[in-house]
Amino acid sequence: MAERRRITPVILSGGAGTRLWPLSRTGCPKQLLALTHRETMLQLTARRTIDDACFARAMVVASAAHADAIEDQLCSADAPCGLLILEPAARNTAPAIALAATAADRQDILLVMPSDHVIEDVPAFRAAIERAMQAIEQDWLITFGITPDAPETGYGYIRRAEEVAPGVHRVERFVEKPDRATAQAYLEDGHYSWNGGIFLFRAGRYLEELERHAPEIAAAAREAILQGRREGQRLWPDAEAFARSPSDSIDYAVMEKADRVAVAPVEMGWSDVGSWDALHALAAKDGSGNAHHGEVVAIDTNNCLIRTEGPLVAAVGVKDVIVIATRDAVLVMPRGDSQQVRLAVEALKREGHITLHESWS
Amino acid sequence: MAERRRITPVILSGGAGTRLWPLSRTGCPKQLLALTHRETMLQLTARRTIDDACFARAMVVASAAHADAIEDQLCSADAPCGLLILEPAARNTAPAIALAATAADRQDILLVMPSDHVIEDVPAFRAAIERAMQAIEQDWLITFGITPDAPETGYGYIRRAEEVAPGVHRVERFVEKPDRATAQAYLEDGHYSWNGGIFLFRAGRYLEELERHAPEIAAAAREAILQGRREGQRLWPDAEAFARSPSDSIDYAVMEKADRVAVAPVEMGWSDVGSWDALHALAAKDGSGNAHHGEVVAIDTNNCLIRTEGPLVAAVGVKDVIVIATRDAVLVMPRGDSQQVRLAVEALKREGHITLHESWS
Repeated sequence: MAERRRITPVILSGGAGTRLWPLSRTGCPKQLLALTHRETMLQLTARRTIDDACFARAMVVASAAHADAIEDQLCSADAPCGLLILEPAARNTAPAIALAATAADRQDILLVMPSDHVIEDVPAFRAAIERAMQAIEQDWLITFGITPDAPETGYGYIRRAEEVAPGVHRVERFVEKPDRATAQAYLEDGHYSWNGGIFLFRAGRYLEELERHAPEIAAAAREAILQGRREGQRLWPDAEAFARSPSDSIDYAVMEKADRVAVAPVEMGWSDVGSWDALHALAAKDGSGNAHHGEVVAIDTNNCLIRTEGPLVAAVGVKDVIVIATRDAVLVMPRGDSQQVRLAVEALKREGHITLHESWS
Repeated sequence: MAERRRITPVILSGGAGTRLWPLSRTGCPKQLLALTHRETMLQLTARRTIDDACFARAMVVASAAHADAIEDQLCSADAPCGLLILEPAARNTAPAIALAATAADRQDILLVMPSDHVIEDVPAFRAAIERAMQAIEQDWLITFGITPDAPETGYGYIRRAEEVAPGVHRVERFVEKPDRATAQAYLEDGHYSWNGGIFLFRAGRYLEELERHAPEIAAAAREAILQGRREGQRLWPDAEAFARSPSDSIDYAVMEKADRVAVAPVEMGWSDVGSWDALHALAAKDGSGNAHHGEVVAIDTNNCLIRTEGPLVAAVGVKDVIVIATRDAVLVMPRGDSQQVRLAVEALKREGHITLHESWS
């Protein structure tokens, strides 16, 4: 077997979600938090591809506001990145990946990964990457398809067609977030995967398709990199140039329109930890179904997620409740409905509690 | 009508309960908190008897640890006390009242009041005191009987016999906290009142009965006052002498055994605010049955008590929940069962979180 080019991980750290408020804030987004393990989600992501035989140093695309935190975290995880691209503005995933692809060699194979997902079974992930690599040679753009285990309505779905390499299928179609009945039908159909936002392709193939389907994004990214400023491992794309890029996701801008798009289905204990409910589902629990973190006193308490980074939390006689406490804010809500946290964040914005969603006190 | 001796209010501020933890602490007990109004419970108590025509300046019996706080609060409520008796140790109500009765003139009429109860209808209270005054002339010891409006199992009950003065009845018997069925029967019987711990008697009558039924308490109080130290309005009874006093309640030590004990039934919007549930019942509520205090964001929330002196509390989609937040502790429990807060406090003690029940951080 000929010596293979090493894969370049591209870690997307642009998210600034508030679905895990009050812990996640604009200034301290989910990927920079240690939610599921002692390491942060960014650290876990970076450490998944530490293997000099297979992977080059990662490129990280992030907001300039988080540059120091990202370098610190990667350094202390012994997973320093090769290039830290600091987006002058948030433009969604297609432009972010375009920056990385433009900064890379067109022959480089990029493994694009969100920085805030959990993958429990890393060997399964690595095996799926191996399978996907076979299709790279035939110029496929690969997305990894998460084997669904519930009729989730919060994810996009991918239906697979015929196999194009062992364990890699041509994508028949992408479907937007379905309603519950449709999701149930997809689950039973057996040919659907969740779109987990993890991709593998040659940099040049991505740019080629981007130039065809979203030429303004491709041009803005090219210009931004050309006129960008490099300092050590940090790369600042030109703000004015990048500002001209439309905002769009890689799915809309490229994957749903490109030729030769394939999916590599994989079962790897994946979760996007998209809500406090998801974290409760993932977390180690005691015999009463409770997942606690921090100074918690729980009495006669069942199936609760109680987490504090600030005051001690005492729960007595509560069931199916989520309590998240920081020094400056406490969230209390029933389990099963934690997407509604956005209502609280919206109310805080309306009422002028700016710092409470931007950063910690 | 002959000029009448003014009544001396005796305010008992010895409680250090934890039923309202995490707000109440050993170092900051319930009576020093503003729970129901802008004023603290001590201030509300003191202001009930500001009326120079009827009342002398109050005597306050309290723990030395709270001396400064008590003076500050009474001063800012324009209700300075005449004498602040600082107990060297907590010995329950019979010895505390004995200190006040000993320091007073034996002819003084004492109105003994806990400092941590709510009385919404002060004119009704004052009218009951007027009624009770008629029986004082015949040497009765009077207790005020709260008209019960529910089969509460947390209070002692008093059954009344024949009237000895208009609106004042001889006590037939005191009964300990009954079970639910018994309480229900008392409620239906119509001759029972709750024992609210408010008393009216001449100092000498109390001491006479105390000397008969609990001579060690009477002797210890007498000795403690004799050897005590006075400084301005503060009186420090002698610690060694007072330490010899048995610990007992006025009910056990005196009222249940004494001759000529009467009850003055009164309906006056009384509450001992003995739990967070009681506070929710008392508090002004919004259209959804919520009582909030402090920085609270409540969305789709019903019948909750949410109170914070520290972090902002955001509640989304919760019902019948109590959330009490301070800078260092947060309590979460279902409504209707808030007596169980003691379980949390006991756990904190066991686990060594001393400061969390002693004082605020």
